[in-house]
Amino acid sequence: MIRKVRLYTPGPTPLLPAAQFAMAAADMHHRTPEFKALYTKVLAQLKVFVGTKNDVLLLSSSGTGAMEASVSNLTSPGDKVLVLTAGKFGERWTGLAKAFGCDPDVLTAPYGQTFDLAQVKAALKPEHKIVFMQSTETSTAVRHDVEAVAKIIKESGSQALLVVDGITGLGTTHFDVDGWGIDVLIGGSQKAVMIPPGLAYMSVSEKAWAAMETSKNPRYYFDLRKERKNAVKGESAYTPAVALVAGLGAALDYIAGQAGGDLEKGRIALVNNAIVNAAATRAGLVSLGFTLFAPTAPAAAATAVAVPEGMDSGTVVKALKSRFSLVTANGQGEMQGKIFRVAHLGYFDYLDTVAFLAAAEHIAKDTLGLPVEFGQAVAAAQRVFAAQAASS
Amino acid sequence: MIRKVRLYTPGPTPLLPAAQFAMAAADMHHRTPEFKALYTKVLAQLKVFVGTKNDVLLLSSSGTGAMEASVSNLTSPGDKVLVLTAGKFGERWTGLAKAFGCDPDVLTAPYGQTFDLAQVKAALKPEHKIVFMQSTETSTAVRHDVEAVAKIIKESGSQALLVVDGITGLGTTHFDVDGWGIDVLIGGSQKAVMIPPGLAYMSVSEKAWAAMETSKNPRYYFDLRKERKNAVKGESAYTPAVALVAGLGAALDYIAGQAGGDLEKGRIALVNNAIVNAAATRAGLVSLGFTLFAPTAPAAAATAVAVPEGMDSGTVVKALKSRFSLVTANGQGEMQGKIFRVAHLGYFDYLDTVAFLAAAEHIAKDTLGLPVEFGQAVAAAQRVFAAQAASS
Repeated sequence: MIRKVRLYTPGPTPLLPAAQFAMAAADMHHRTPEFKALYTKVLAQLKVFVGTKNDVLLLSSSGTGAMEASVSNLTSPGDKVLVLTAGKFGERWTGLAKAFGCDPDVLTAPYGQTFDLAQVKAALKPEHKIVFMQSTETSTAVRHDVEAVAKIIKESGSQALLVVDGITGLGTTHFDVDGWGIDVLIGGSQKAVMIPPGLAYMSVSEKAWAAMETSKNPRYYFDLRKERKNAVKGESAYTPAVALVAGLGAALDYIAGQAGGDLEKGRIALVNNAIVNAAATRAGLVSLGFTLFAPTAPAAAATAVAVPEGMDSGTVVKALKSRFSLVTANGQGEMQGKIFRVAHLGYFDYLDTVAFLAAAEHIAKDTLGLPVEFGQAVAAAQRVFAAQAASS
Repeated sequence: MIRKVRLYTPGPTPLLPAAQFAMAAADMHHRTPEFKALYTKVLAQLKVFVGTKNDVLLLSSSGTGAMEASVSNLTSPGDKVLVLTAGKFGERWTGLAKAFGCDPDVLTAPYGQTFDLAQVKAALKPEHKIVFMQSTETSTAVRHDVEAVAKIIKESGSQALLVVDGITGLGTTHFDVDGWGIDVLIGGSQKAVMIPPGLAYMSVSEKAWAAMETSKNPRYYFDLRKERKNAVKGESAYTPAVALVAGLGAALDYIAGQAGGDLEKGRIALVNNAIVNAAATRAGLVSLGFTLFAPTAPAAAATAVAVPEGMDSGTVVKALKSRFSLVTANGQGEMQGKIFRVAHLGYFDYLDTVAFLAAAEHIAKDTLGLPVEFGQAVAAAQRVFAAQAASS
């Protein structure tokens, strides 16, 4: 039988065909009027997609490059910062802060959980120049409450900047960037925007721009002030990943096109799409007897599933791959073997969810030996879908 | 009439169709066996393409990212380094060295010229930890003599590392990386390897690896030791630009395929292709009365052409674009308006050269008012081609 390769991984995610074609066709030089028009259009679209009046910049790197840019542009050696971490990507903030000579205080939540807000409040000190966090911790598929953390910072009278890795959060979570006061919000191309990795984007507030005037860490390739100056002219400071920019433009056009050309509405629809698919997936998996790894604060970007004690989650990942060419993600670091993750972010639809659950039924039955009635996970998802359709 | 858009710019360069298709089709996750096999293959091919036994690493960034990696991984604040500069990209080394707190001595050659080797010898001091240079200065289309500089370093008894930006030099110049002693040699994807921008690659010698053990500048996204550790497992430290890696693999296959599957021979043929096309272009342009901007050390990557005093080179660039959809590059910085540049690197063939020269004849006649006999530049190029064919 034919088995189509299907990515259900939380980045790279399935590619939008229109973006694939745009990438392949992008035989363009980056200092031409054609490219400048494209770049200007994409930067304007990204502001709407992020949902902010702040500048949004593009960097030719993975999302980690934009995380580094946040640290190198906003800090000086010796700065006290607060890192909120509950997984591998939170730990990356700590690593970055240390690499650039900062002195991080680290508030940790256990893997699979989000932060106790009272602890966040207690951890925040007047000397913290920045609070770093994820909006979604991809390694555990947990959603953190950025709005609440922003409120804690504001109400405490702290002058700290709030820097948020929204790499899997953007396009799967509703943000009010300017209203809440997110100073930096970071996205990546291989996530909800449906194109391959290689581009990062980030919104930067006026307060963050002001902080850069006095920060002393070295930066060159990721010099945000240089990017800002060039962006006004429709250019990047250094040669941009032209094909990916073309793909990104096509993807943002598609997202807008899903809502009659209104990108803001399209973004909201995309987030809701992930939320419903995630809810349907959770219902289906729970109906099979799987345990959710992050039951209290599950992300819409992806669902993390714990396998029974003594079992290896890699077996599930491998079986889905070998029987259905269906690519899911194992846990990372110490979660390897304990969980597997299935994504809902970007170019996923309801029928993808149903198809995944049908495959999961076979694996639950044959690989894990669970008692399965064929169709039960699918039916659980269908009930979620029907209820959502009825209510909207 | 139909006018096909044709890039004659020294990066981005024309895309190889097989690479475009590979990019578009690269719906892959980067932690799968399929991608690891691809990544391992591409890294091995890059060693042959660069022509070295040293490690070759890939970075998801433009070439400037790899230039930054050379500085941030190999230096500590206060280090004395020597920068050889003769154009905009040489000046980038100076900017990078200063951004990371180094103390650069700068030896400058005028735009359009290469270095006086006696001056290089005199400038090199025992305290210099690194010598930074270009192999081809793209902004002036000048070829620098890397072999001679390497020899000066060796014979002086200096312990300095030699770090070479070969972004347009690779695939247009013959290098003996290990024989000459090039410690770092940097390439970029949008150049001779025929794919869009967004990937950089670099070879790193054992001597350079040793230097990293004690260097103190901060690096994270561009941490070369982390990349080296991951490369052994067929992985990158952070999410790589998957589609571009797939495109690069297809392009390196093509280059090998041009020489019966032998990538080393294919690379040599690619370099010779650029050399002959550059020579033919120079002959054609000189026959029309144009002045070469870099007559003594012309690069094979691109040819820089000076327009007559009082004339704006932008007029030529615009006329080639509007009449023939042919994209060339203006001068950069203070060379803007004084020169235009036409490229030969990567996926260019002899018929591209002839076609360009026919277009240049029209522009020379109509835009610049030069006395032109139709076919004269083409014929001059044909004589170069015929002589080369006869001698090989």
